[in-house]
Amino acid sequence: MANRLMFEKPLGMRDTLPFFYNQKRKAREALSNAIESWGYQFLDTPMLEYLETVGEASAIDETQLFKLLDQQGHTLVLRPDMTAPIARVAASQLKEQGFPVRLAYDGPVFRAQQIEGGKPAQFEQVGVEYIGENSIYADAEVIALQVQTLKEAGLDHFQLTVGHIGYVKGLLKEIFGDDQETSELFLRFLYRKNYVGFRKALQDTDISKEDQDRLKQLLSLRGEEDVLSTAKNITKNGACHEAIHELQQLHEILESYGVTEYVSYDLNLISHMSYYSGILFEGYAPELGSLLCNGGRYDQLLPSFQTEASATGFAVRLDRLVEAVNQQNAENNRTLILFDDRSFQKALKEAKDLRGEGSRVVLQHRNNIEEKALQNEEFTKLIDLSEGGADHE
Amino acid sequence: MANRLMFEKPLGMRDTLPFFYNQKRKAREALSNAIESWGYQFLDTPMLEYLETVGEASAIDETQLFKLLDQQGHTLVLRPDMTAPIARVAASQLKEQGFPVRLAYDGPVFRAQQIEGGKPAQFEQVGVEYIGENSIYADAEVIALQVQTLKEAGLDHFQLTVGHIGYVKGLLKEIFGDDQETSELFLRFLYRKNYVGFRKALQDTDISKEDQDRLKQLLSLRGEEDVLSTAKNITKNGACHEAIHELQQLHEILESYGVTEYVSYDLNLISHMSYYSGILFEGYAPELGSLLCNGGRYDQLLPSFQTEASATGFAVRLDRLVEAVNQQNAENNRTLILFDDRSFQKALKEAKDLRGEGSRVVLQHRNNIEEKALQNEEFTKLIDLSEGGADHE
Repeated sequence: MANRLMFEKPLGMRDTLPFFYNQKRKAREALSNAIESWGYQFLDTPMLEYLETVGEASAIDETQLFKLLDQQGHTLVLRPDMTAPIARVAASQLKEQGFPVRLAYDGPVFRAQQIEGGKPAQFEQVGVEYIGENSIYADAEVIALQVQTLKEAGLDHFQLTVGHIGYVKGLLKEIFGDDQETSELFLRFLYRKNYVGFRKALQDTDISKEDQDRLKQLLSLRGEEDVLSTAKNITKNGACHEAIHELQQLHEILESYGVTEYVSYDLNLISHMSYYSGILFEGYAPELGSLLCNGGRYDQLLPSFQTEASATGFAVRLDRLVEAVNQQNAENNRTLILFDDRSFQKALKEAKDLRGEGSRVVLQHRNNIEEKALQNEEFTKLIDLSEGGADHE
Repeated sequence: MANRLMFEKPLGMRDTLPFFYNQKRKAREALSNAIESWGYQFLDTPMLEYLETVGEASAIDETQLFKLLDQQGHTLVLRPDMTAPIARVAASQLKEQGFPVRLAYDGPVFRAQQIEGGKPAQFEQVGVEYIGENSIYADAEVIALQVQTLKEAGLDHFQLTVGHIGYVKGLLKEIFGDDQETSELFLRFLYRKNYVGFRKALQDTDISKEDQDRLKQLLSLRGEEDVLSTAKNITKNGACHEAIHELQQLHEILESYGVTEYVSYDLNLISHMSYYSGILFEGYAPELGSLLCNGGRYDQLLPSFQTEASATGFAVRLDRLVEAVNQQNAENNRTLILFDDRSFQKALKEAKDLRGEGSRVVLQHRNNIEEKALQNEEFTKLIDLSEGGADHE
C-alpha cells in the first residue's frame, strides 16, 4: 500500500489517543455511576439499523445519515442517535416488564458532515430514557439526575435552561390561529436562535401592535422562576396556562431535589422543530461554545412503534463534557523496568510486586527500546536493572 | 411508520439488554484493569476507515466488509478489526514517542454476514498491540498477559495453544521446495482444521514415503513442551530449527511467568493464511464451541504503513468470554420506593439516604406504575410510602 490517503481518516472521523481516552473514561464512569444509583439500567443497541424503522423515527435530518445497502437490498443507517433504537427495544423486548422503565445508554452515534475541519461525524453520548410515565415527577427526576450526573463528572459551573414547547406553540396559535405557515416561520427562527430574523419578520406581519409586543416579549422571557408568572400574564389560552402550570409544579419539585441553583427558564426554547412535546431543556457550561447536553419530553416517538407511552430523557455529549471539566490530573503514571538476559528474573519479581501494589509497570528488555522512548515523558519512574543501569549490582 | 420491519434489526445485529450488558461490563473492566497494570495504554479509533488504507491492510476477507460511499466518492468500511487502525495510529501520531509502544483497545468490530441466525455482524473485542519489539520477551509478555486477563475476568479453565508459522512453512518448503501451490494447498487444510482433507491430499502427492510420514506426524505435534524436541527431530532446515528454538526460549520465559499450566503447543496451528509471521496462539475454554481469543506476531503490517516495526498482540471476544465465565452473580439489585403526592418529601429523603449508601434506588409515583411492573422480578426490595402501602404511616 502506498497512496496519498495512507494515514488519513474519513471526513469528521477522529482518533482518541491515550490521554484523552483516559479523561473520557473517567467522565463516562462518573456519569454511569450517578445514573445507575438512580436505578436506571444500561443497555446497548447495534450501530446499524434499518433506515425505514429507526432511521425514520430518529430526530436527525436525513442529510446527516450515513447510509449503506445490505445484501437483501435494504438501506441501513449508522445510528444517528440512541433514543429511537431504545424506543424500538422498549416497544418490543422490554414491553412485557411493564411501564415505566428507566433505561440508560453510552455509545457512539453518527452524523455525516459536509466540510473538512468541522464537527465530528462520530461522537459518544451518555444518556437516559424514562419511558412510560407522563407526570411532572418524571420530568423533574430527569432534570435532577442531569444536574447530579454533571456534578459527579466534576463540572462545577453549568446551567440548565428549561422551556416548554406547549407554551411557544400555544402563544403562536393564540396570535396566528390556523395560519400554521407563519407559526412555523417563527418557530424556525427560535429553533435557529435567530432573534434578529424573528424581530424583522414581526414587522412584516399584519398582526396588532399588542400581539407584536407580546411576541417581542416572548424573546425576553428568560431568567429565574418569576418569568413564569410574567409568561402566564401575557397569554390567555389554556395550552399556555397549562404549560406554565407544569413548569411551576416542576420548579417546586426541583426545589425539593435542591437543584434550582442550576436551573433557569427560557420560554422561547425550541431545541428541535418537531421532536419534543412538553418540558424540554438544554445545558451549557461557560467554557463551552456549544451545547453540552439536552433533553425533554417526547410523547410521539413510542406511538410510532405502536406503543402508547410517553417518555422523557437526556443526552450528554461526552467529548464536550470532558472539554468543560478539563480535568488535568488524568492518571497516566507508568513505571519502566529495564532488564537484560541476566536480570530478567529479578525484574520480573520487581514488576510483580509493583503491579501487586497497584502500579502500572512496563517490563522491557534494554536492547529493544529506542533512546527517544527513554527520553520522552511517557514514564514517570525508571528502574534500570540492565548491565550499566544505575540500579544494577 | 407501519411496516413489517418495524421491530427488526439488520442481519447479524443484536441488542444487548441490561443483564448481559452488566456481565459484559464486568468482564471488560477486569480485562482492562489487568491490561493497564502492565502499562498498556488504551486508545480508540473511529468506526469508519478508508477501504484503500485500513480496509486493505486488515486481515479480514473483503466479502465480510461493510462498505459505504462518502460524498467525496471514497469507499469507507466499518472497521473489521482493531489491529490495522492501531497500526495506522502507531505509524503516524505515535511514531515520535519511540518504539516499543504498548497499546490496548476495547470496542466493536464489524463482519458482514450472509445468513440469518448465524454469527454476529458486530461484536466487541478487547485486545493489546505490542509494537516495535521482536524479542521473545515480547511474545512471552503477550501470552502471559493473555493468561492473566482471562484469569482476572473470572475464567478458571482455559487453554492457550501455541504454534509457530515459521515451523509449518519451513517443513512444507523442505518437502515441496519451490512448489508453492502444493504448500498453499496443505496450509489451507491446516487453516480450516480439515485434517481428513490433509491426509487425503497427501495420498495424491508423489513425495517419498518418508516425507508423507513426516507430514502425517505434523498433525500429531500437539501437547506439552516435549513435542518441541520431537518437532525438531523430524526436520533438517534452519527455519524450522529456528522456530523450535524460539518456542523453547518462549517456554522458559513462560515458566518464569508461572503460566505454563495454561499453555500447550500445536505445531500445525495456522490461524490465518497470511497474517502471522512467527509465534501465534489460540485460546479455548472447555464450555465454548468456538475461539475465545487469539494472537501472535505480525511483522508485515507496520511496514505496509511505511514503518519498519514488528509487532505482536492478542484479541479477546468479549461476548464469548462472558458466555464462558457464565457469571451468575451480576449485580442488578434495585430498590423501588413508591410515593404519592403526600409522601414525596419523605420518599425523596429515603432515596437520597439509600443512594448515599451505594444502593440503586428507583423513586416512583404510585399512580404511574403498572401492576405488572410491580409483580415482575425487576426489583429486589420494595418500600411503599404511598397511601395504602404497607410502609405508610
